[in-house]
Amino acid sequence: MSTANHYDVTQWPYGNAAEDIGEVLNSIIADIKSRQKATDEMSTGEHDGGKPGAVIYIPPGDYRLRTQVLIDISFLRIEGAGHGFTSSSIRFNLPEDQWPDLHELWPGGSRILVDLPPGDEETAGAAFYVARSGNPRISSVEFMNFCIDGLHFTSDGSGLHPENTYINGKSGIYVADANDSFRVNGMGFIYLEHALTVKNADALSIHDNFIAECGSCIELRGWGQASKITDNLIGAGFKGHSIYAEHHGGLLITANNIFPRGASSVRLNGVTRSSITNNRLHSFYPGMVVLEASSENLVGSNHFLRDQEPWSPFFSVDNGLDDDFGLLIVSGSDNSVIGNHFSAIVDTDRIRPEGATPVIISLKTGEGNYVATNHVVSMDVRGNSSSSAYAAQVDALLSTDAAEHLPVTTVKVDPESKRNTILDSGTERQVRVDVATNAFRASPTVPS
Amino acid sequence: MSTANHYDVTQWPYGNAAEDIGEVLNSIIADIKSRQKATDEMSTGEHDGGKPGAVIYIPPGDYRLRTQVLIDISFLRIEGAGHGFTSSSIRFNLPEDQWPDLHELWPGGSRILVDLPPGDEETAGAAFYVARSGNPRISSVEFMNFCIDGLHFTSDGSGLHPENTYINGKSGIYVADANDSFRVNGMGFIYLEHALTVKNADALSIHDNFIAECGSCIELRGWGQASKITDNLIGAGFKGHSIYAEHHGGLLITANNIFPRGASSVRLNGVTRSSITNNRLHSFYPGMVVLEASSENLVGSNHFLRDQEPWSPFFSVDNGLDDDFGLLIVSGSDNSVIGNHFSAIVDTDRIRPEGATPVIISLKTGEGNYVATNHVVSMDVRGNSSSSAYAAQVDALLSTDAAEHLPVTTVKVDPESKRNTILDSGTERQVRVDVATNAFRASPTVPS
Amino acid sequence: MSTANHYDVTQWPYGNAAEDIGEVLNSIIADIKSRQKATDEMSTGEHDGGKPGAVIYIPPGDYRLRTQVLIDISFLRIEGAGHGFTSSSIRFNLPEDQWPDLHELWPGGSRILVDLPPGDEETAGAAFYVARSGNPRISSVEFMNFCIDGLHFTSDGSGLHPENTYINGKSGIYVADANDSFRVNGMGFIYLEHALTVKNADALSIHDNFIAECGSCIELRGWGQASKITDNLIGAGFKGHSIYAEHHGGLLITANNIFPRGASSVRLNGVTRSSITNNRLHSFYPGMVVLEASSENLVGSNHFLRDQEPWSPFFSVDNGLDDDFGLLIVSGSDNSVIGNHFSAIVDTDRIRPEGATPVIISLKTGEGNYVATNHVVSMDVRGNSSSSAYAAQVDALLSTDAAEHLPVTTVKVDPESKRNTILDSGTERQVRVDVATNAFRASPTVPS
Repeated sequence: MSTANHYDVTQWPYGNAAEDIGEVLNSIIADIKSRQKATDEMSTGEHDGGKPGAVIYIPPGDYRLRTQVLIDISFLRIEGAGHGFTSSSIRFNLPEDQWPDLHELWPGGSRILVDLPPGDEETAGAAFYVARSGNPRISSVEFMNFCIDGLHFTSDGSGLHPENTYINGKSGIYVADANDSFRVNGMGFIYLEHALTVKNADALSIHDNFIAECGSCIELRGWGQASKITDNLIGAGFKGHSIYAEHHGGLLITANNIFPRGASSVRLNGVTRSSITNNRLHSFYPGMVVLEASSENLVGSNHFLRDQEPWSPFFSVDNGLDDDFGLLIVSGSDNSVIGNHFSAIVDTDRIRPEGATPVIISLKTGEGNYVATNHVVSMDVRGNSSSSAYAAQVDALLSTDAAEHLPVTTVKVDPESKRNTILDSGTERQVRVDVATNAFRASPTVPS
Repeated sequence: MSTANHYDVTQWPYGNAAEDIGEVLNSIIADIKSRQKATDEMSTGEHDGGKPGAVIYIPPGDYRLRTQVLIDISFLRIEGAGHGFTSSSIRFNLPEDQWPDLHELWPGGSRILVDLPPGDEETAGAAFYVARSGNPRISSVEFMNFCIDGLHFTSDGSGLHPENTYINGKSGIYVADANDSFRVNGMGFIYLEHALTVKNADALSIHDNFIAECGSCIELRGWGQASKITDNLIGAGFKGHSIYAEHHGGLLITANNIFPRGASSVRLNGVTRSSITNNRLHSFYPGMVVLEASSENLVGSNHFLRDQEPWSPFFSVDNGLDDDFGLLIVSGSDNSVIGNHFSAIVDTDRIRPEGATPVIISLKTGEGNYVATNHVVSMDVRGNSSSSAYAAQVDALLSTDAAEHLPVTTVKVDPESKRNTILDSGTERQVRVDVATNAFRASPTVPS
Repeated sequence: MSTANHYDVTQWPYGNAAEDIGEVLNSIIADIKSRQKATDEMSTGEHDGGKPGAVIYIPPGDYRLRTQVLIDISFLRIEGAGHGFTSSSIRFNLPEDQWPDLHELWPGGSRILVDLPPGDEETAGAAFYVARSGNPRISSVEFMNFCIDGLHFTSDGSGLHPENTYINGKSGIYVADANDSFRVNGMGFIYLEHALTVKNADALSIHDNFIAECGSCIELRGWGQASKITDNLIGAGFKGHSIYAEHHGGLLITANNIFPRGASSVRLNGVTRSSITNNRLHSFYPGMVVLEASSENLVGSNHFLRDQEPWSPFFSVDNGLDDDFGLLIVSGSDNSVIGNHFSAIVDTDRIRPEGATPVIISLKTGEGNYVATNHVVSMDVRGNSSSSAYAAQVDALLSTDAAEHLPVTTVKVDPESKRNTILDSGTERQVRVDVATNAFRASPTVPS
């Protein structure tokens, strides 16, 4: 029986994986279910078994998906052999007369081409839709080592090049119901409006994926607990978030390298007792990490870099936030912000509103937050730019010499946020705090 | 010859993997050994080769194990296609008349059902027993992506529901002899009294596993060095430890999300020059991280949450420690405790002994420890509870609003611990330290 | 078509993988290319596809490589089933008359025996050579789960045992051209002069590998950005570096356990806005982490251990640096050094120059660096030694009791480095800093 639990989409007699892998996957899932015993049969007798699930292998290749895959069984692993990322964004922004000279035009690996018509529901455009109510929660579904490619973005009416809008109504994976012990590992997601959306997660692991050039990348919605987002390469578009979570407790976000252009690198809403530690975060805008109505979280040992969009196709867009909004926003109580490095590298002429002093850490509401030993570096640089995405970014990243220091507010505590403790995170001049309602120890001033 | 090094347990002509995978695996291992050249043959001639090992594949399915697997060769990978976790604990605590309505009753994936009779020796109940003396140490054995299920716990005589005792004499993997460069990756362990026990490890990697509902989860015994326990989801029972290590140096414990109910989240005994950094730790009891006779370790950037058991089946149990024992215990010298967040969320009425002030960081013996920039949050909450494990935990995790602040001792330095440095980890009132024998700088007091 | 994208080196009709896997792999790559459509064909029509790449499987076994593999296609995964590490260093340093009693002599797993003649160019000895110019950059090449073994080192003329020189002109993987989204995961590298060299990397992931007993382990050359080196076990030889990077921005080095003997554990040259966080670092020499012309980096939450070579075969070698050079060297501006633990365990009689005070953190040039809440432990121990590598190391790691405290300079700020901030990282006596040009707050003195 066991070997019957190992499938290959290219070997399945029903459907044609290259033409519609969705139909093939649904047919395989139906086969798995038809072979499983009923639960009441499992609970009698002495076999202690019954529904182990299966693995479905997707070899490298292009597989068009015209039918949404519905997953409603536990212990299903869908596994490819390559995350297949290549930058579609760079390619679409090259003049078309250069395309014939390119080595390749599209992502690859075990690649699913999402070709679903738009629908009224957000979920209509999801390549993989996971839904099962009842008990137990659906468990141990695993997505591994394949590529989900949304192919194209579409016009948003703004006049922006359609391939730069991050809009197409498509999702990679959408988990609708409460779930336990899922894994998403080694995957590639590209050119999807929403890459990975999981509602009501418990003990979810999102590890070592490549999620880039998507509108939003990871969205944990509903509520959830005890999950981890670790060791990923992630980069959202300017309308979305690289990582978003709401009403989660005990979430561990660590060891991620988050690329710029997302409206936020990490946005938490109603999240408690969670960690954002030890990440490398890069953003082109203020509001790169936002804690909204979120308490008792630890933001520690992260590297924050905020600079400005150097690539000409995206010069006209941003996330709408002013430079005095802050890079790390805390609305909530009893959070810890300890041992982070912040680099703010901006062109004074592009600061908004004109003449404003940029803010780094902004405590907006709440109380009892603890901010200690954070180091802020701020530079005024002439905005460089380039029509080559890679060259522009590397140049910007590596240039530190010619810059002048830029005055910033390292910590700003609004009147609505009280009883906070601010230690060694800026000098007297750099921190704006009411010492009648907060504890404050300035960093010693460096002799000039 | 090479293809002969790839096996599938369901294709092996000897034995029946569904009935006794242990017999099948031992037979395959015997075959591997019979095909390997003698070492003296390897050292002559020009081939520089000889004993590359093999991979044994376990497809998804249920495999009963009635015979212990003995591993005594290097370079053996045993690999499945699914860690297969689902909560057996929740299921066993549902009324049996609800069982027929459940989608599934058991864990799945590539699942081994441990069905060994109890024995006199601790090792008798181990599904996988790794033992080889002589030189070199057995190397590069890899366990990947399968599930080891102990099936049931048994009565411990306490009157507790037998399935809630965490006792059954079974182990998942037991490594008895000195070893090098082992990997345990992507595995699931469930309902085992001891999930993974490794003696005398060098350069061991325990990465990205799901180890839950086991008595003890990871135990590094004997002595060892230069190993890592990273990026796991782990949760032990109330009699055991999620991570235990003794006489190890250079151990890196990082990026783990450790669930509550273990007597300790991490317990180190005689461990030196190691790191517990950047983990999310959750416990229902004091003593969540214990350094015993352990020196020169770094405990940094962790999130500690201690609250109280919200799930009714386990209301009667705990680890026996009082609230003034401490959450992080340091017995040893020259350790660093830097940049951690602690949340202690307890019901005053359940504090033990009655009226005691809970302790967070407790330095018991030793000298020269350095404790800096730790933030402690403490709340008094009415104990919530629920008959639903998941709902109860999420509710407890997310509730921060209605709580009142609870007075705690953030750092307590016993007279037997001297010459420590305590900085910015609590106010004058919150720290109990003899300044005649320790260096102390209080956090500035927040205006009230 | 899809199944044609899955290859097995032992099943390929051309060549013999055991005798020359290089010839077989090149033949398979030629086959993959011959089946791909031209780019101009891909950009017309409606198929949105064309060059998905392939996976090539290497089962466990010994495969001699006599022909260099040239990779010039994207989306190629080469995958084995075992990193196969065992210590060749220990074996070669055993008396030969003990070899016949050994269980095995060589590494194993899916093992490639690099047997290339030395050449004039550095790249001549590379088992895998990745090169492709033009656009787009070569993308998503993945190396996974196999072993690259250089077999032997050769005499360096110094009189050192030839197998201990770390010299043989061989490389494991050499990536010569700009690349995107590569993955190196689960690999083993051993006895190579250069294990893994990648030029001009973007979004590279080097994760969960075992790279040891190589001259240099990971070298990121040229320039690059947004990459990660995470969760590896790494240990270089005394002439090389465990991790080296130059002209990189946004590099995340985290969760690595780095063994001693490398001239540096991590050496960065011209690297900006990057993180070395949360690693366990062990070295036998000064200069264990060097930031050279590197700015705005975060070195946080690491455990640094420097002790002395305990294994007799390597007593005569070191990296040539004196003890007053420093363990962490900062030449550059605006870096953050926060929350690290340092243990310096040395034999006073072996300090160089005689009578010198060892230095821990050394700021040599630049300005604006921020050094806070670092804890330095220093001990004077009698140098132990052993002819057994493992026993010697474990003994050294675990011995803390008999030692006496050793006076050290915890932070030394040279006159060429200015405007730095030094907080809580040593007492007045332990820090050497000109307070006319730097901000300094001493750790409070522990009562004696």
